[in-house]
Amino acid sequence: MAGEDADDTLSARGEFAVIDRLTAGRRQPPFVTLGPGDDAAVVLAPDGRVVVCTDMLVENRHFRLDWSSPHDVGRKAIAQNAADIEAMGGRSTAFVVAFGAPGDTDTASAVELADGMWHEAGLMGAGIVGGDVVAAPQWVVSVAALGDLGGRDPVRRDGAKPGDMVAVVGELGRSQAGFTLWDSGISGHDALRRRHLVPEPPYGQGEIAARGGATAMTDVSDGLLADLGHIASASEVSIDLAIGHLQPDIDALAEAAAAVGADARQWVLGGGEDHALVATFASQPPPGWRVIGTVGASDGTTAVTVDGARWRGSAGWQSF
Amino acid sequence: MAGEDADDTLSARGEFAVIDRLTAGRRQPPFVTLGPGDDAAVVLAPDGRVVVCTDMLVENRHFRLDWSSPHDVGRKAIAQNAADIEAMGGRSTAFVVAFGAPGDTDTASAVELADGMWHEAGLMGAGIVGGDVVAAPQWVVSVAALGDLGGRDPVRRDGAKPGDMVAVVGELGRSQAGFTLWDSGISGHDALRRRHLVPEPPYGQGEIAARGGATAMTDVSDGLLADLGHIASASEVSIDLAIGHLQPDIDALAEAAAAVGADARQWVLGGGEDHALVATFASQPPPGWRVIGTVGASDGTTAVTVDGARWRGSAGWQSF
Repeated sequence: MAGEDADDTLSARGEFAVIDRLTAGRRQPPFVTLGPGDDAAVVLAPDGRVVVCTDMLVENRHFRLDWSSPHDVGRKAIAQNAADIEAMGGRSTAFVVAFGAPGDTDTASAVELADGMWHEAGLMGAGIVGGDVVAAPQWVVSVAALGDLGGRDPVRRDGAKPGDMVAVVGELGRSQAGFTLWDSGISGHDALRRRHLVPEPPYGQGEIAARGGATAMTDVSDGLLADLGHIASASEVSIDLAIGHLQPDIDALAEAAAAVGADARQWVLGGGEDHALVATFASQPPPGWRVIGTVGASDGTTAVTVDGARWRGSAGWQSF
Repeated sequence: MAGEDADDTLSARGEFAVIDRLTAGRRQPPFVTLGPGDDAAVVLAPDGRVVVCTDMLVENRHFRLDWSSPHDVGRKAIAQNAADIEAMGGRSTAFVVAFGAPGDTDTASAVELADGMWHEAGLMGAGIVGGDVVAAPQWVVSVAALGDLGGRDPVRRDGAKPGDMVAVVGELGRSQAGFTLWDSGISGHDALRRRHLVPEPPYGQGEIAARGGATAMTDVSDGLLADLGHIASASEVSIDLAIGHLQPDIDALAEAAAAVGADARQWVLGGGEDHALVATFASQPPPGWRVIGTVGASDGTTAVTVDGARWRGSAGWQSF
């Protein structure tokens, strides 16, 4: 069997047979009226609007195949797109996926990638409705997500007002902590190392925040300070975080931080890729959301402060 | 100025400043209710359904930057996705774009890529509503397209019936001819060489075909025989082409074929990437569409024949 499988590569099987294998036996949700296999798919948009976003993962830049299984990569690619739909107050309905990989990639790895995508999409009842499979020098996974607003206004970044509370749902700093552990070659801390490979966005909380009156929202993809900086800038406000309110996240990372000689506060304030949701609310946020700061008037200088002062560490990730 | 520009690379400018530069001054069509700059975009889907597809272009696999300008690459990336929406009988409304490139790519090249995308999207009145810019070892351009069906049923591949006519709109074989000219280092034949870099799908004809009663449709992306093979297989029919009806395409390529010692018929029957539309009709096709063959019952063997016989050349392109 191993001998047979070793010959079952993308190039040996050919594009169309690979696509047949990747799509076989998948069950689409009822609002997908035409799934893969034609020139394009058709998805219901009962709201009369569709929310759409895209994100690309490049091997050795956004993931390493000696750290992540293909299943992990598939989950992460869907999760980070789904988090962007959540951050608008929407629900993900469908994903399309473009996958580039070397021709000698074994088909089983591609199937595992697709399985991971379906697993993650299943967490929110969405479907993978179409895609493209091409030859590339390394793995490239590009996903676009469609979402539905259920008749609500999208929650943008520019609606925060002085006096609003800043609140978060989901965990902070775990992915960055996990990355540092992987990068330092330190074993143990399995939950944190795992979280770097597969984020766990708080699915469903985007809609809850929208219904709960969120005035602005984003997901924590670049780092809490950087992402709140986008809200502050778009809304023309300042934001001050209370480090004491982030203590549960800091405490959860203390042991790992000690092991690698890092500052857990830096992971919590500057670490991205956890895809927690952070939003502003004029009144008390919904249950499960933790208040971590307040919105003030813009003073024209530093947009986001921690206990009233500028944070001296990194604010977050940039692609280049 | 040249010295300043030479330092203006993606990595020197940084992700967010690059995105600001790429999105500055673009005018979104009225059905885009929220464009780039937030976690996701919002596009109207008045039909209550959305058509969606994706395609990825990888440098040195699908394009070469010593043949194509960034503007050409941008046009091609949009065109091939838009052709898939056309092939469902839809109209493209919006695109999202994920762009990977080395950090030392100059910002001007990325702007030119985006300009090409906006140019092509403008041909159909669509907008580029969102994207992602990441570091990658080579250029990777991944586009997802959204389309609207205007209340019509999507035209699938599985609706062809024995007795239908096969008709095409748009040109065949040009891209493959152009590729062969480029690859052979033969100059001249500028229109053909240009067509390889930038296809010209017959925008608007997908909707016209749907209104005109098309029973099945696809775009010619892999090669006429290969793409009709998909219709024949999905519809469980056979298709016979009359080579005489393809004579205008063959004649248009005769000179270039002689120059490189190729068979123009092979370019017309097996060449992809022109993104012509090919469809089946129970009655006369709309004006502008040329009848090139007939649909028959499936005989369980060769699905697509030319003048009643199996074509001995290549049927088309596979990704691996």
